[in-house]
Amino acid sequence: MTFIGERLPRKEDPRLLRGLGRFGDDQDRPGQLWMRVVRSPVAHGRIVSISAPPGVITAADLPSDLRIPVRLKVQDIDLDEFLQPVLASQTVRYVGEPVAVVLADDPYEAEDIAEQVEIEFDELPVAVETGDGQLAAEFELGYGDVEQAFQNADHVVEIEFDVGRHSAVPLEPRALLADVDPATGALQIFGMTKVPVFNRDVLSRMLGIDENLIHVHAMDAGGGFGVRGEFYPEDFLVPWLARKLCKPVKWVEDRAEHLVAVNHSRQQRHVAAAAFDKTGTLLALRDEVLHDNGAYARTHGIIVPELTVAMFPGPYRVPVFNGRIRVMLTNKTPCGTYRAPGRFEGTAVREQLLDVAADRLGIDRVELRRKNLLAAGELPHTREMSTLGTDVVLDSGDYIGLLDKAMVEADRLGYFAEVEKLRAGRQAGLGVAMFLEKSGLGPQETADVMISPSGDVRVHSGGTSLGQGIETALAQVTADALGVDPAVITVINGDTNLQPFGGGSWASRSTVVGGSAVHRAALAVRQRAVEIASRMLEVAEEDLEVRNGAIGVKGAPGSSVTFADVAKACRPGSPHLLPDEPAGLTERRRFEVEHMTYPYGVHIVLVDVDAATGQVKVLRYLVAYEVGRAINPTMVEGQLLGGVAQGVGGALLEEFRYDDAGQPQAVTFMDYLMPTAAELPPIDILVAQDAPAPGNPLGVKGAGEGGLTAAGAAIAGAIRDALGLTGSVGCLPMTAERVRGLIKEGK
Amino acid sequence: MTFIGERLPRKEDPRLLRGLGRFGDDQDRPGQLWMRVVRSPVAHGRIVSISAPPGVITAADLPSDLRIPVRLKVQDIDLDEFLQPVLASQTVRYVGEPVAVVLADDPYEAEDIAEQVEIEFDELPVAVETGDGQLAAEFELGYGDVEQAFQNADHVVEIEFDVGRHSAVPLEPRALLADVDPATGALQIFGMTKVPVFNRDVLSRMLGIDENLIHVHAMDAGGGFGVRGEFYPEDFLVPWLARKLCKPVKWVEDRAEHLVAVNHSRQQRHVAAAAFDKTGTLLALRDEVLHDNGAYARTHGIIVPELTVAMFPGPYRVPVFNGRIRVMLTNKTPCGTYRAPGRFEGTAVREQLLDVAADRLGIDRVELRRKNLLAAGELPHTREMSTLGTDVVLDSGDYIGLLDKAMVEADRLGYFAEVEKLRAGRQAGLGVAMFLEKSGLGPQETADVMISPSGDVRVHSGGTSLGQGIETALAQVTADALGVDPAVITVINGDTNLQPFGGGSWASRSTVVGGSAVHRAALAVRQRAVEIASRMLEVAEEDLEVRNGAIGVKGAPGSSVTFADVAKACRPGSPHLLPDEPAGLTERRRFEVEHMTYPYGVHIVLVDVDAATGQVKVLRYLVAYEVGRAINPTMVEGQLLGGVAQGVGGALLEEFRYDDAGQPQAVTFMDYLMPTAAELPPIDILVAQDAPAPGNPLGVKGAGEGGLTAAGAAIAGAIRDALGLTGSVGCLPMTAERVRGLIKEGK
Repeated sequence: MTFIGERLPRKEDPRLLRGLGRFGDDQDRPGQLWMRVVRSPVAHGRIVSISAPPGVITAADLPSDLRIPVRLKVQDIDLDEFLQPVLASQTVRYVGEPVAVVLADDPYEAEDIAEQVEIEFDELPVAVETGDGQLAAEFELGYGDVEQAFQNADHVVEIEFDVGRHSAVPLEPRALLADVDPATGALQIFGMTKVPVFNRDVLSRMLGIDENLIHVHAMDAGGGFGVRGEFYPEDFLVPWLARKLCKPVKWVEDRAEHLVAVNHSRQQRHVAAAAFDKTGTLLALRDEVLHDNGAYARTHGIIVPELTVAMFPGPYRVPVFNGRIRVMLTNKTPCGTYRAPGRFEGTAVREQLLDVAADRLGIDRVELRRKNLLAAGELPHTREMSTLGTDVVLDSGDYIGLLDKAMVEADRLGYFAEVEKLRAGRQAGLGVAMFLEKSGLGPQETADVMISPSGDVRVHSGGTSLGQGIETALAQVTADALGVDPAVITVINGDTNLQPFGGGSWASRSTVVGGSAVHRAALAVRQRAVEIASRMLEVAEEDLEVRNGAIGVKGAPGSSVTFADVAKACRPGSPHLLPDEPAGLTERRRFEVEHMTYPYGVHIVLVDVDAATGQVKVLRYLVAYEVGRAINPTMVEGQLLGGVAQGVGGALLEEFRYDDAGQPQAVTFMDYLMPTAAELPPIDILVAQDAPAPGNPLGVKGAGEGGLTAAGAAIAGAIRDALGLTGSVGCLPMTAERVRGLIKEGK
Repeated sequence: MTFIGERLPRKEDPRLLRGLGRFGDDQDRPGQLWMRVVRSPVAHGRIVSISAPPGVITAADLPSDLRIPVRLKVQDIDLDEFLQPVLASQTVRYVGEPVAVVLADDPYEAEDIAEQVEIEFDELPVAVETGDGQLAAEFELGYGDVEQAFQNADHVVEIEFDVGRHSAVPLEPRALLADVDPATGALQIFGMTKVPVFNRDVLSRMLGIDENLIHVHAMDAGGGFGVRGEFYPEDFLVPWLARKLCKPVKWVEDRAEHLVAVNHSRQQRHVAAAAFDKTGTLLALRDEVLHDNGAYARTHGIIVPELTVAMFPGPYRVPVFNGRIRVMLTNKTPCGTYRAPGRFEGTAVREQLLDVAADRLGIDRVELRRKNLLAAGELPHTREMSTLGTDVVLDSGDYIGLLDKAMVEADRLGYFAEVEKLRAGRQAGLGVAMFLEKSGLGPQETADVMISPSGDVRVHSGGTSLGQGIETALAQVTADALGVDPAVITVINGDTNLQPFGGGSWASRSTVVGGSAVHRAALAVRQRAVEIASRMLEVAEEDLEVRNGAIGVKGAPGSSVTFADVAKACRPGSPHLLPDEPAGLTERRRFEVEHMTYPYGVHIVLVDVDAATGQVKVLRYLVAYEVGRAINPTMVEGQLLGGVAQGVGGALLEEFRYDDAGQPQAVTFMDYLMPTAAELPPIDILVAQDAPAPGNPLGVKGAGEGGLTAAGAAIAGAIRDALGLTGSVGCLPMTAERVRGLIKEGK
């Protein structure tokens, strides 16, 4: 029996559906103090004075020069001078920047005290437009002589494209509880769910204490999507206060805070160009990116613009490429990653560029893509670039095959017929976008797999449970490797004591890298069990076989020991253990990987534009996605469905706008428009498993982001098609107002 | 620099002296319920009916036939029918037996509700006297033909001796908190400090859940002494209720409960005889023991009477020995171990027997001992007996040498002169008692030693911190093995997640077995650090040396890497790790041992008896104790001082008396008389390190019990000497009333 590939019910669901999950706010300690952050009401200013009730903590109370370090470095670009302080000391740089914290016995009192804090500012000039900001970093990626390629081209197509500022808005805002051992200052921290080990290490350095004094417990999390669980100012403040006051300290973010405090994302201005020969063959691509990073470089540093250009060529054969990035600081909330970071942006721009080019060249847009996609035989394909510290080597796939499959499927489902029918009388359009994703970032993940004397199996993984179903996926991997029922398997995530070498859940790496580590550890436990069973049964290992939770003698159905028996025989003091052999039936294994794996897909969308209001209605949506191998197809589909929902939000609705003074205009759900079920069409999913990843033993490619990656691209393409534009739609999100503008301009 | 042997300040003291220790009662969870136990008010009866408010839990609510298993088996004697149920169902067997539990939001309300529970009993006949009890087990230990030896003897001396029922009364009563994960039913348990892994496993079997669902956190404990931390009914009830109600449950024992609920100990009647030849050479010993075990066999089973007779021959050359035990059940609190279990009792009896014999034979009592002690050259000495599952092999020592040393020291300190002076006008007496202890029980202990990237060192030991200073001792062991300062070392005890193979702290095993495990793990980490350093420095291992927290090239003072550097180089993904090598600079090692080690000592005491009141005043007290090697002499002395204090209590004051109806007469500190500073003399300590234990790499022999072992013996001897008795004093404790009786009888 193999469990990989089965649509098993999620192991997480019994607790989550019965309200028994444990989220950050579910943790309390008697006597805990509640923290409230006092945030800057101005976008840029010098702090002249702070008038506050006694006990309010400001930067002056903190260790000096505390800045949150970058987690993901790009090349050797030094961002030290742009790092965010824990609390602003002299200058505030965005509305929402933490300036002080107050503590009280309950959250309401804390909020009341926070309102008594008066800060006098000398206001300073505000940079809201990206182009008006401060240049923080500038770099290029690419290969080949791009100028020459464009000079030699028969056709050059160029567009400008703005991607709007938006971000993930998980159902659950952030929450954090720090409990302290008064004797040692050791901390128990609940709620840093995403990269707990990394956050532990950052915190230990910032506090100047040994990392083993910090025990981080990742919790259930109501969605992560990249923005949650990074190291934020509050992640220092809460534990630091707990140690300082020798009391538990708790903090729960409210929605208004969340919308100005967590990483924003996406905002970029692109000038992108493609060079073609006569036949429509791509000769070169060029992209100039002005990246709005907000007020500081946070933990993601400048990885999003790097990813944007490194992934810009996508699945296409691009002989020459140049991407140039200027990272600008503005007086807005700092930015980080949001699901499909860089790829949502770059894919939207590239695919819109191809749509415009197809029209200019007079080639069908699908045909243009098919012509320029890398063929299956051209893979693996190395691009002379690196991102996330890894060389870009597209590992395996059949891009053209998947495009064809998706077109056949869309046709079968009646997309093409329907759009033709709608065009009689309505401004309907079809968008087709192709994308490349990346996943399985290393350098490593570590896992323990152990079997109890009861026969239960436990996995200590380095991932975290953000709602993605990692417990189920890893249980399926373990079940297959051990030959046991997933029901006896428990997966424990994100406990830095139980798994001190965990890399966390981000970058679609958990199943690929974490799953492979679990796979290796489970095989090692299996082998160890056979070794011990051989001693117990006094039969050579090669004469034993694993069957259904037991190890038996080949050809002798009655002669076997269960895994539980073997686990009992591994207790210390057992005669079956050699003197220096470790006790316990448990193995820890690492999976190390140098290169990422590259899933890919196609989005096909059918929209209807109301010419009077400019409102875009998404009528049908198809995602075809190659994942190498689907551990649990239902979960892959769930990932893709959720991604499309977020993509529709980012393409049509969600935007963090600011006024000229740098005041955020979207600080409630009245202003920040999330898609609801009413805005979402039925979604068709085609999960392909035609191109297993060669770089990991499971063949998996990661499925976390592909529902979102091309959503902006496909919807922009569909709107362009609906409106019959010759140029680009020019920006995202395509709000009704902007669509009305396009209709009015009529180009 | 060696740290073993240094008088380092205790690592525990900064937290304990500043009130920052964390004891069982210091743990709380929001919403916790408080448990209160309803205990039987009668000593023996059938439960006719229970009238209780709703929500009260009785045996009928529990899984059926829940009995607490024996932890320490003796031979293959089956005690199943005598095991204590978690709650009495049909019959109660002692005053204080748990019959029901109630829960409330605070402990006061719980106590009020408990008082509303009315239980109707049919009272049954009560066995209070040991001889009237039910025989639960009967067995013999010994070797040689004892009847013949006594027949052939020139002199036979026999005494009867009663040791009174008393027990440890630690400063902190028991406390327990169980928190439950509502999704999985997993438990966090705080407070089972002594044998946390064993208790976890018992609980997992009683609850029918996997052991990994239970995480026991041993806490600071205000004294253990054997009675605390065994598995009691409350240790099932609290976690079971937490799981049943899906809420945290807490229970804190009050003193009145403690005095009837925790294990009593010591109560035995001995008929002991010695056979001598003409010259006073011992030919044989015989001991018949009637052991009062109270109402049930608890976790210790019948190990105390086994230890009593197995250790009865003590340090003497006893060619023939027979010990016969009858274990009786009475309607009193069940019994278990109390510091120096069996040895306090047996030593008192044997040494009194020798004192009586010396007088009968007309030989000086010290001379009689010296004549019959095993000589150094006779060791190792095997006795054809086993106890605690191990063969009795006295490992090393110079018993006569230590006796002589002690006599010289007592003389030097003026003991002999002082008693002679006092005898003019007072009833003063001198007691001299020799004893054998045992320690270092296996079968194994496990320890982890790890070095952090900060250079801090952590030890995860399987012992528990009961106030004995184990953290300091293990830090000193680690410091020596690694060559680092003990200040950078943190010892974590009794966390079943961090150290799942711990044996706990009991039987004076922590330093001997646990310390040896730590020693091995620390040496392994050191070796691993050298291996990694060799790769880092590209120098062969044999050309490296460990110096002061670093590993350097021999003869090249400038060329070295610190342990912290090495730990950093052990992070996963490091180029210094081979593909399948474990990450982290950490090693786990087991120390396995088949035989115990046997420390030994001498107590010399000077008492003054008030002939009018019968009150015994202890004027001077000398303990000489061979410990093999003192890791921290100050801590050894502290152990001995505390032991003497408890010994004085047991010899003169403490007694759990019952009336004829089985009602306990000592349920407060008004009735149960503990020694105070006023009852304690100055105590002289002579710690000898002349006979390292050959069976462990540290040479240590365990120092936890020797201050108490011979206290009853020495004080009884001194009283006998003071009163000029020809026979035995007959019993302990020698309360003023009993001393007046002896004076009246004048024998």
